[in-house]
Order: sequence, then structure tokens, then C-alpha cells
Amino acid sequence: MPDGLLEQFDRLIEAKGYDNRSEALRDLVRQALVDQTWVPAGGTADRDTVAVLVIVYDHEERELGRKLTHAQHGHVGSVLSSLHIHLDERHCLEVIVLRGPRDAVRQAAEGLVATRGVKFGRIVRATTGEGL
Amino acid sequence: MPDGLLEQFDRLIEAKGYDNRSEALRDLVRQALVDQTWVPAGGTADRDTVAVLVIVYDHEERELGRKLTHAQHGHVGSVLSSLHIHLDERHCLEVIVLRGPRDAVRQAAEGLVATRGVKFGRIVRATTGEGL
Amino acid sequence: MPDGLLEQFDRLIEAKGYDNRSEALRDLVRQALVDQTWVPAGGTADRDTVAVLVIVYDHEERELGRKLTHAQHGHVGSVLSSLHIHLDERHCLEVIVLRGPRDAVRQAAEGLVATRGVKFGRIVRATTGEGL
Amino acid sequence: MPDGLLEQFDRLIEAKGYDNRSEALRDLVRQALVDQTWVPAGGTADRDTVAVLVIVYDHEERELGRKLTHAQHGHVGSVLSSLHIHLDERHCLEVIVLRGPRDAVRQAAEGLVATRGVKFGRIVRATTGEGL
Repeated sequence: MPDGLLEQFDRLIEAKGYDNRSEALRDLVRQALVDQTWVPAGGTADRDTVAVLVIVYDHEERELGRKLTHAQHGHVGSVLSSLHIHLDERHCLEVIVLRGPRDAVRQAAEGLVATRGVKFGRIVRATTGEGL
Repeated sequence: MPDGLLEQFDRLIEAKGYDNRSEALRDLVRQALVDQTWVPAGGTADRDTVAVLVIVYDHEERELGRKLTHAQHGHVGSVLSSLHIHLDERHCLEVIVLRGPRDAVRQAAEGLVATRGVKFGRIVRATTGEGL
Repeated sequence: MPDGLLEQFDRLIEAKGYDNRSEALRDLVRQALVDQTWVPAGGTADRDTVAVLVIVYDHEERELGRKLTHAQHGHVGSVLSSLHIHLDERHCLEVIVLRGPRDAVRQAAEGLVATRGVKFGRIVRATTGEGL
Repeated sequence: MPDGLLEQFDRLIEAKGYDNRSEALRDLVRQALVDQTWVPAGGTADRDTVAVLVIVYDHEERELGRKLTHAQHGHVGSVLSSLHIHLDERHCLEVIVLRGPRDAVRQAAEGLVATRGVKFGRIVRATTGEGL
């Protein structure tokens, strides 16, 4: 590995609080393996998959809270649980944990993020932990 | 009262040996009066208090989800976080954690339970752990 | 219903924020029905049941956090999800949602509350909402 | 690096067309360097910031659960709440919501991800919703 790259990497992992390079490299490899399960070539459509969805929205927005709850209940096989944080009098942070066949999870998560009025949405492609 | 509810109640009071509905209702009311004591003597109105609220409701019920979210954001100083479990396509279990001055917490929790359409509500008066 | 009882009840439901007596009575009836499903005579041991467990403990207590996590994973069929609130530098509030056959849920919940070192524990016997 | 992990990684890099492990690792390191930017230019160090951390770990791993709980309580000003999902008998998914001054939130989140034994960690930099 080029020295310049290694130096930057060492600074990065120190800043992030890793004890050593090996631990940090292991994490990068695991991350690459998790990411891979989500692409068509890297796993099957019905593979048991976990995702976490983070959205921020204004609950005063016309019908938005209702639509989001309704959609989550429509995917009741995949949506395990939601954590709701009341950011201020209008804004909600909602964390939604999904588990199920990969493509069902992906579809449910993408549909929720795309809901009109959601101000912020990120899908974390996580893992059941198996094999890592 | 919905017929289904009344039927189940009649079976319950028969099993318990009540002569009639009125007597059974009187007992429920008496029990509620006994349970009501939030031990006002047990601390000051502004004592730092933790409570956990458990409610079950039908999110398809007209405007109910919206009303509950709205109310929680209105008590944003006391409501810390909610955990939402999707029980089935209609029913929600929501666990709401409140912390703040005792009387503000009590008022927020009781108002949420009393919201029309909430099918089940229980308030657990918890503790900050201090002094135990 | 005796006038004295009714008066007290009216004061109670007004304080709790109910709109009227009917709504408050319905809630009492539903509560009685939910409670009933938990007693041996009122439901079967394998009835689909929901419970919420609230515990407060000191995570610095020797091995306690580990024991509680271990026990929850041992009941992985019944324990759906936990919400953890960091009350202060030592104290944790944990809300654990359980769902499964009634007696498995009861046993898991009672075992967790009885764990040595748990300072506070309450089991809320909740409901799937069905039939209420 | 555990053999199982290495085998999976070798299959992955072969599928992706890399000539050898070194080249693939270099790319992961480069990607990590690109991803690292928490956009310091995007706000001041004490700007009110919300982040969501998703980690997966084996709670049977020596002392790991305890270390993570301890660390979260050490950042009690920033860590609002955690949602714990019991994936199977060994694996935990934990979602941790943080809010506070930007640099305190970043430090807490990165330290948790870097904890030895955490198999998967992703930090979502969210928003308070203000101004969006």
C-alpha cells in the first residue's frame, strides 16, 4: 500500500478511535461483504435481510404521519419496530427497523423514503450478523 | 358500547359470578377510584419523574394516530421517545417514555390514555433510579 | 350506581381528560377483558399475548446488563424489541416488548424482573388489540 | 482476520474482478478516506446535531455489551435512546440516537463503531429538521 495512503488511513483510524489497523481493516471488509448482499449479483432476492431506515419529517404536514403509519402496517411482515424521537414541536425523527426477504425490505424502505413530504431519508443496509 | 365488547363482558361477569352488569360496572368504577391515587403525598409537583405509557390503538381509526402524535409533540419537554410495534395491519402498540416534573408527566400521560379510540392504556410510574 | 360513587367517578374522569362517562366506562371494560386473558381461567396458555416490561437498573452493577441481554436473547422467540433510555451515568430504563404464547411471555417477563440487581420492574399485561 | 471472513472476501473480490487482495484492500481504504468527511465546513463544532448509529454485534463477545452500555452512559448528554432488536440468540442490532453539539456527537458515534468486536457499524448524520 502506498505510504501516503497508509499515513492518511492511520490518521483516520486514530481519529475514529480504533486500537489498530487490523480492527479497522476487518471492519472495512465486513462492510464490503454486507454491501454486496444488497446487489443483485451478491445475494438472492429472498435472502433474510435487515435494514434500518432513518427519516425526518414534519408531523403537521397534511396526512403525512398517517400515510407513513399506514404504509408501515401494510408491510407488517417486514417492519419490526419503529423508534420515534420528538425533535421539536413539529419535527419527528423516526427510525424503522425492517427484516425479511431482501427485495421486500428494499421495496418497503424505498417506498417510505420516497413519501412526499419526508424531509430526510437514509436507508442503512445492515445485516443479520450471520457469517461476519 | 360496541356489541362485541358487551358480549365478551357478559361472559366475563358470568364467569366471575356477578348477578348483573350494573354490579360489575360498579366494581370496576370502585377499582378505578382506588387505583387513581398517583400518591400526591409521595413527592412535590415538580419532582423529576419518569413514566412509561403503553397504549394499543387502531391506526385506521379516524385521525387517531395524528392526534396522538400531535399531543406527544405538544408535550415535547416531557416525552422522550416512543417505540412503535406494528401488531397487525390495523393495531399499533406504542410505548411512550416520559420524563419531567411529576404533574406535567402525569397530565401528559393521562391525556394520551383518555384519547377517544385508544383501546388499551396503562401508565407505569417508574423511577429515575436515584436513591433506590 | 350510588350518587356518591358517580360523583367521584365524574371528578376522576374529568381530571384524566375523558370527554364523557361512556368512553371512560368502555376503557374500564376493555381493561377488565385484557386482565382476564392473563388468568388461568380466562384464556389458554398458548394464546397470542403481548406484554411490556419496564425495568430500571444500574448498568455498573456486576454483570447485570450482560445477564439481562443474555436472558432476552434466550427468549428470542418472545422478546421483540427493547428501548433503552440512559437516565444518568449509572441508571438505565429499559422497556422490553414481548409477544408470544401467554405462558412463555409471562415466564420470560417474570424471570427478567426477578433478576438480582434490578431496582424496579413492572409487567404491563397488554393485548394484541384483537376483539377489543 | 478470521478464516470465514477471508474466504468470503476472496469470493467477493474475484466476483468483482480484482487481481488480488491488496488491490481490493487499497480500494476499501481509499473509499473510507473519501467517506470520512463529516463535512467540517458544514457547520460549527457546537452546532445542534442529530445522528443515528446502527451497530450489529455478538452480545456473547467478551464484555462487549457491557462496554457499549458503559460508553453510551458516559455520553449521557448526547445519547438520547437506543432501540435493541434481538436478531438471534447471539446477535444484537442496536440503533442509537444521538443529539448534541456536532463534535461531541461525532466522537461518541465513532468511538462506539470502533469498539473491538462490533461487526457492523454505520453512522447516519441526520438533521434536526430545522431550515429544511
